[in-house]
Amino acid sequence: MTMKSPATAPSAVVLAEAKRQHALLSQGVAAIYPERGVYGPDGLFDKLVEALQAGRPLKIKLGMDPTAPDLHLGHSIPLTAMRRFQDLGHIAQPLIGDYTARIGDPAGRNKTRPPLSDEEIDRNAQTYYAQLFKIVENNPAKLELLYNGQWLKNLSFAETIKLCAQVTVAQIIAREDFSKRLAANTPIAMHELLYPIMQAYDSVAMNCDIEFGGTDQTFNCLMGRQLMQALGKSPQIVITFPLLEGLDGSDKMSKSKGNYIGITETPTNIFGKTMSLPDSLLPRWFDLLTHISHENRPTHPMEAKKLLAEALVARFHDAGAAKNAREEFELRFSKRELPKEIPEISLALAAPTLPDILVAVGFASSKSVARRLIQQGGVRINGEVYQNDLLANDTASSFIEQVGKLKLIQVLLNNKM
Amino acid sequence: MTMKSPATAPSAVVLAEAKRQHALLSQGVAAIYPERGVYGPDGLFDKLVEALQAGRPLKIKLGMDPTAPDLHLGHSIPLTAMRRFQDLGHIAQPLIGDYTARIGDPAGRNKTRPPLSDEEIDRNAQTYYAQLFKIVENNPAKLELLYNGQWLKNLSFAETIKLCAQVTVAQIIAREDFSKRLAANTPIAMHELLYPIMQAYDSVAMNCDIEFGGTDQTFNCLMGRQLMQALGKSPQIVITFPLLEGLDGSDKMSKSKGNYIGITETPTNIFGKTMSLPDSLLPRWFDLLTHISHENRPTHPMEAKKLLAEALVARFHDAGAAKNAREEFELRFSKRELPKEIPEISLALAAPTLPDILVAVGFASSKSVARRLIQQGGVRINGEVYQNDLLANDTASSFIEQVGKLKLIQVLLNNKM
Repeated sequence: MTMKSPATAPSAVVLAEAKRQHALLSQGVAAIYPERGVYGPDGLFDKLVEALQAGRPLKIKLGMDPTAPDLHLGHSIPLTAMRRFQDLGHIAQPLIGDYTARIGDPAGRNKTRPPLSDEEIDRNAQTYYAQLFKIVENNPAKLELLYNGQWLKNLSFAETIKLCAQVTVAQIIAREDFSKRLAANTPIAMHELLYPIMQAYDSVAMNCDIEFGGTDQTFNCLMGRQLMQALGKSPQIVITFPLLEGLDGSDKMSKSKGNYIGITETPTNIFGKTMSLPDSLLPRWFDLLTHISHENRPTHPMEAKKLLAEALVARFHDAGAAKNAREEFELRFSKRELPKEIPEISLALAAPTLPDILVAVGFASSKSVARRLIQQGGVRINGEVYQNDLLANDTASSFIEQVGKLKLIQVLLNNKM
Repeated sequence: MTMKSPATAPSAVVLAEAKRQHALLSQGVAAIYPERGVYGPDGLFDKLVEALQAGRPLKIKLGMDPTAPDLHLGHSIPLTAMRRFQDLGHIAQPLIGDYTARIGDPAGRNKTRPPLSDEEIDRNAQTYYAQLFKIVENNPAKLELLYNGQWLKNLSFAETIKLCAQVTVAQIIAREDFSKRLAANTPIAMHELLYPIMQAYDSVAMNCDIEFGGTDQTFNCLMGRQLMQALGKSPQIVITFPLLEGLDGSDKMSKSKGNYIGITETPTNIFGKTMSLPDSLLPRWFDLLTHISHENRPTHPMEAKKLLAEALVARFHDAGAAKNAREEFELRFSKRELPKEIPEISLALAAPTLPDILVAVGFASSKSVARRLIQQGGVRINGEVYQNDLLANDTASSFIEQVGKLKLIQVLLNNKM
């Protein structure tokens, strides 16, 4: 891939400004593609030079799935970077991928994935924007809100064929998840191979200068670059961001894994959930989510976590809320007091075991996970650690079940046998 | 795959008629899918029962490429079978695949494959129909002429995704040519994987009962069956036909290989080309293209070929033309007379060898093929067998070059050294 030389060489002023912006904008990124530039270290530098010479802002694409509009700390990383671009006068292009959500399960077999209606997509979009604007500036001069249905609904089969012709099969099935599934003989439906091409076509239709993604999106984003180039457009720069590990300390933070902190959660929740973080993740969370330098982080893990938790509450609420959350936490857990209000759940299970109940109330994703929790002493009944799968005969039909420090529920058993 | 039982069991009359038609219609086929039926030996039998019970004719699809409308003896095999269906009251659905021809080279790199215009497609279709109706009956009651652009031009991207969702990647890349190319690291463009799905969708849109194809089309035709079933339609029966080897005795007959006899060629050409057939193919050509039984075929290859050649001319012209062609052939070649008119070619090759010339005039597809021809004594210069790659010093700059009995050309060398 070669970069066309601009008509005139960039001036010293342009180069200096590109250098200044590049230093700000490359903070916290995982990688920038292309990795080498003509005028500076990478493709982002060249794009900045190009835009500054032309006197135009850059457009930055960030795709979002409209079926799960809950933004969490993982999302906040690219969004914070997006805000930095806006602060320098560039344009954020948050893209809602509504087209596939409107289709639902394309094989028509999964009744639990019905097509979303216009109203549902609209509602999800509003929820998403409300969260987005806690980080991204809601300023029409620096914002283009887009839906990919706008162009995909008009894409003919002939155009689909032309797009697909730009990409080889080997290239697509080299994508890590596809190659693994093929090797394991796990079926891949043909339409799944079209999705990366569709995402790439979004970049063509949007004329974006840059696409943002998690490091797990590198393949898809680079495909956008390739497709733009094949169709004679100036190819986008790809900037990837580190994936934040979730509260479980292993998987990437995600709504479906339940290991997340939403950016609109209450101060109490943000604080409490942060306190449940494994110690090993502390340096990484400090690095990715705060500007607190190494020397300012307490060495004791509990104190470090409290500082991190305060910083996060302050960021998504304010300093006062952070202080209150800390005090409430210390009062509640340091003194082993239960919070004032505990949610109640009424279960109608026949002869339930403790794992059944943990799954039913949502404290464990499966019975085997529940059993492990119990074995590890992570489950309390009425405040006492309980390490047996079967409920004791004298367990009342109403009791308080607790997992860790934050998961508390008043269980009412209707069918205890 | 299961077959729904009809509301009532078929009557003896229906079964007898299905048996009669099945015997006629399974003549000369390579395979019928499904290979087992409920009421008779195979899926075709069941379809006949179903149609006879419902008192409706069957619809039989046969796809054709509109870029190469020259029908040859290879095509005549399924078309003859199609005519048998018509003779029993069923409906032929010749399908012109105009949609991809209108796209041209989808990657946009191949200037030699421009998109065909409406006029070109129309002209090709008329040429095709003119040839088709030498075999298939041109009777509106037994014929539906279709173009796949009629439905593919309205196919949305959402519908494309839904169709693709019915098929797995493993299934498509198991197709022999794809798996070979993947194994050899020969690039396959993504749009190529869409073509079998598109062909399958044609069957869905046409509501055909049966699809015809060469044995090399088995995969694509069965995909049509699968897609119809997945979309809740009665799945088509697939009937495949043997592929006729061409005049070279090895490859499948095709226009691009130049090893074909067109069904609209002159009696002289049909007769003469048939006479150039390798002896080893005689039994197969008799079997696939005539009703002449074993005992009525002469044992001497030359006599057998003359009988075959006469039969083919009689079929595509008439008995008188066949007799004339035979007489002309015997006069010309048995008496070693040259035909009255020999084409001329003027070559400007520097120091040409005989293989160079054979390739340049189109009598050999490569120099290695040319060398083999020369070694085997298959090349004559001015009537004499010539078995040397280098031209003799006394070869004139104008001479008659001859390969076999039919390839004759007057060569004028401009640069003989």
